[in-house]
Amino acid sequence: MNGAESLLTTLTNNGISVCFANPGTSEMHFVAALDKVPGMRCVLCLFEGVASGAADGYARMTGKPACTLLHLGPGLGNALANIHNAKKGYTPMINIVGEHATYHVALDAPLASDIEGIATPVSHWVHTSSAAADIARDAAEAIRHAAGGRVATLMLPADVSWNDNPNGAEPAVAIARPRPISGGKIADAVVRLRNGKRTLIMIGGQLITADNGRDLSRIARRCGADIATDTFPARVARGAGTAVLPKLPYLAEAAIDYLQHYQQLILLGVSPPVAFFAYPGVPSTLAHEQCDTFVLADPDDDMDRVLADLKVAVGAEDEEPEICARQLPELGSGQLTADAVARSVARRLPDNAIVVDEALTCALPIELHLATAARHERLSQTGGSIGWGLPAAAGAAVACPERKVLALQADGSAMYTQQSLWTMARENLDVLIVIFNNRRYAILEFEFARTGAPGGKPGPKAASAFDIGNPDIDFVALAGSMGVQATRATTAEAFDEQLQTGLAACGPRLIEAIIQ
Amino acid sequence: MNGAESLLTTLTNNGISVCFANPGTSEMHFVAALDKVPGMRCVLCLFEGVASGAADGYARMTGKPACTLLHLGPGLGNALANIHNAKKGYTPMINIVGEHATYHVALDAPLASDIEGIATPVSHWVHTSSAAADIARDAAEAIRHAAGGRVATLMLPADVSWNDNPNGAEPAVAIARPRPISGGKIADAVVRLRNGKRTLIMIGGQLITADNGRDLSRIARRCGADIATDTFPARVARGAGTAVLPKLPYLAEAAIDYLQHYQQLILLGVSPPVAFFAYPGVPSTLAHEQCDTFVLADPDDDMDRVLADLKVAVGAEDEEPEICARQLPELGSGQLTADAVARSVARRLPDNAIVVDEALTCALPIELHLATAARHERLSQTGGSIGWGLPAAAGAAVACPERKVLALQADGSAMYTQQSLWTMARENLDVLIVIFNNRRYAILEFEFARTGAPGGKPGPKAASAFDIGNPDIDFVALAGSMGVQATRATTAEAFDEQLQTGLAACGPRLIEAIIQ
Repeated sequence: MNGAESLLTTLTNNGISVCFANPGTSEMHFVAALDKVPGMRCVLCLFEGVASGAADGYARMTGKPACTLLHLGPGLGNALANIHNAKKGYTPMINIVGEHATYHVALDAPLASDIEGIATPVSHWVHTSSAAADIARDAAEAIRHAAGGRVATLMLPADVSWNDNPNGAEPAVAIARPRPISGGKIADAVVRLRNGKRTLIMIGGQLITADNGRDLSRIARRCGADIATDTFPARVARGAGTAVLPKLPYLAEAAIDYLQHYQQLILLGVSPPVAFFAYPGVPSTLAHEQCDTFVLADPDDDMDRVLADLKVAVGAEDEEPEICARQLPELGSGQLTADAVARSVARRLPDNAIVVDEALTCALPIELHLATAARHERLSQTGGSIGWGLPAAAGAAVACPERKVLALQADGSAMYTQQSLWTMARENLDVLIVIFNNRRYAILEFEFARTGAPGGKPGPKAASAFDIGNPDIDFVALAGSMGVQATRATTAEAFDEQLQTGLAACGPRLIEAIIQ
Repeated sequence: MNGAESLLTTLTNNGISVCFANPGTSEMHFVAALDKVPGMRCVLCLFEGVASGAADGYARMTGKPACTLLHLGPGLGNALANIHNAKKGYTPMINIVGEHATYHVALDAPLASDIEGIATPVSHWVHTSSAAADIARDAAEAIRHAAGGRVATLMLPADVSWNDNPNGAEPAVAIARPRPISGGKIADAVVRLRNGKRTLIMIGGQLITADNGRDLSRIARRCGADIATDTFPARVARGAGTAVLPKLPYLAEAAIDYLQHYQQLILLGVSPPVAFFAYPGVPSTLAHEQCDTFVLADPDDDMDRVLADLKVAVGAEDEEPEICARQLPELGSGQLTADAVARSVARRLPDNAIVVDEALTCALPIELHLATAARHERLSQTGGSIGWGLPAAAGAAVACPERKVLALQADGSAMYTQQSLWTMARENLDVLIVIFNNRRYAILEFEFARTGAPGGKPGPKAASAFDIGNPDIDFVALAGSMGVQATRATTAEAFDEQLQTGLAACGPRLIEAIIQ
């Protein structure tokens, strides 16, 4: 078999069965191998940022990496923002990046660039395969690195693809299990939980299951502590029957206020909380200086085990967790608002849905109303780079074809990677998209007041830079142009009706919610 | 003034008057400064790849840099592919990339990344400003570096923006003139041109003017040499009245065939020709081993001067250049083909138009028919990264509001940066876009046969990866969704009529040419 075939076989031998691809000439042998090696689904994306965001969404839902197939340095560049998000969210990801043939690189052809240089800032592991005989082994190494919630980027020179690999493919590799937390650390946490200090336990990491949330609630109740997630947890079980689990506010001032009551923080899969951005006169570190911080578990530690052990250690097995009761909000009426959208979504949400949240300034009512809605899982944007929501929704739908995916999407962010709609139509993915169309970069209006001209209003040029309503973007036409059926709602009643229709249908749909 | 104001003033003091922007929170002081410092036009883009491609198109037409304003590492990542193209085309470009406040960087907030690491592979000069007192001086340095056809990327930490700069702005900086070519080199070239060897003079660089082409033709006729441009010259004068100036073929095999007749190459602003990609069994270096290569001028040398000196040195002042006579092709008829599109465009092209060519597999008839059409300038994609055409057309239109811009655009490539349409509508840019919609990645079908499975046909998965017609993209609806008026043509007659209408109008228009 040639290098590409041995690479592909190694991937499928390791259960990697989906490739989000935007190939070019240097990847043609990899593409040819797709028809020779069984077991790899190739999902074509019209832009590499869709491929990387979809790989992120897919891996969050399956716990195993997808691979991306990208074309040289510029293709990797196009994918970079969503690889960044994946890296910050501890998503397992394998990027296969085509490179010129080994002997061609030095000639500085138009598409030549320092691909490793581009890959390094957004990858935990970077390697350029140097010979067909090595590529399967290199792929196995990439798989090993990605498994623990890491981004592995493997450059595949064209001749490494097309030359014969006498060593063939690699079998399934031994994946290191998550490191166990030492008993000493658990004991240490117990001491802290009993020291009488006012305590907040914060949890993050790749996945907060409903069981994890309940265990955390039991532990907290037993010890008189409070609990919270970080501001943007990668994947968290939510809704009726899950534990009451607030999240740290986004606003630095609000987060500082939130944390000021605590004398100690115990951290599970999260770093000590810091402000999203720096602001003049506002501290960047959110906990006060006297607050004692203890990191109990890292993001790729075995959270199930940590919580089970801690629960026993504090004697919380029989504690009743604090649970969100099912309580559906009243519907809104009249002019459509973000609150009315969230009310409808909360009332109509089917069981076990996947909610992909890139609603930004419209997200607050979602957080509020969905907490007591049907049980669901919410994916949040972990790295702050917008244009993640639609691709991630596509990837989640590829991962979980039996579950409804609901993408709650800000308008400006949607425009970064709107090519996702085409992939949703092509693959008939069961995604219902709600665009919160407020016709502006509302978050920048908001941030401008906090940073740019404190207390002042933006001048005409600044105001223009936040106004994406000139011209208005017609998301119904945009969706239709890529084969996705869409409707527009300007009232709460119309939205609610369109939402029910959309949820009842199967396959991609979009509702453009014109938000006042 | 604060750092941002001193930066902006330094830019405008140096004639940099357009900023293609997609800002975020860390850039709010720069945005605020736009209303305080006069003279900077801020063109909002919905995606950073539009900003960088527009800056490329703008700088090619004005000869001076625009600046981009990008948000942190991911924003730079989104802009990377078109910065790559600019770098390969020797376009002067200044990227201002927001960075977290200096004291915030080490906290590893969600949006923190190694921005210098991302910038380095696509920039000639990279610098992170460390204090407000330095930013104006750093900007002056960026301007100096960019001036010679280089990419300068300057990171602007938020506190460098908002702190007071006691040093104020910098005045206009002294830009080094292009290096003169030594007389010895000219003399050397003359000796070679008279040595009786069969000679090809190849020209590239930032700009091939009509005068340069005619001088080159005079020199070649005087010396019995042939002339050609590289395959993708950044900006070249074309059409009736310009010199007959073939270009090196794209296909490696064809280029090797083209070059095999020559015993020596004299290179003006181009590197020794290499294959765009490597192919099994095909040499990557296109000239044969016995071919003698002489680099007379580098891309940023003063080409006017080099050609003037060489013309005198070989005594070609009175030579008649070989000129393209005006000759318009017959119109096509019936089913629409790329050839029929090119025939119409050639017949209807207004004088002095700017033709932005990202037509890829549809480009050959354009090359053929436009050579004898009205005088125009053609911009080509210099770095091979697709998604350049629409942004570059937007930038060229900002640079030259009095000239018609015609964007000849492949469908697949258009989908990388179609947000350009919105900026065209917003700024009412006089761009007529022709989408060659053949509903496939035709270039990959073609390349697959050459690389992937020689002689073989793609299997179903590979074929699917080249098929972007499932679903069909409706470019008329897509354009309409972003405020650009559009029509669709399926016959040569309809296309010709729509083309005339589009050329007569002012402001952005799109014609979707359904190509058989």
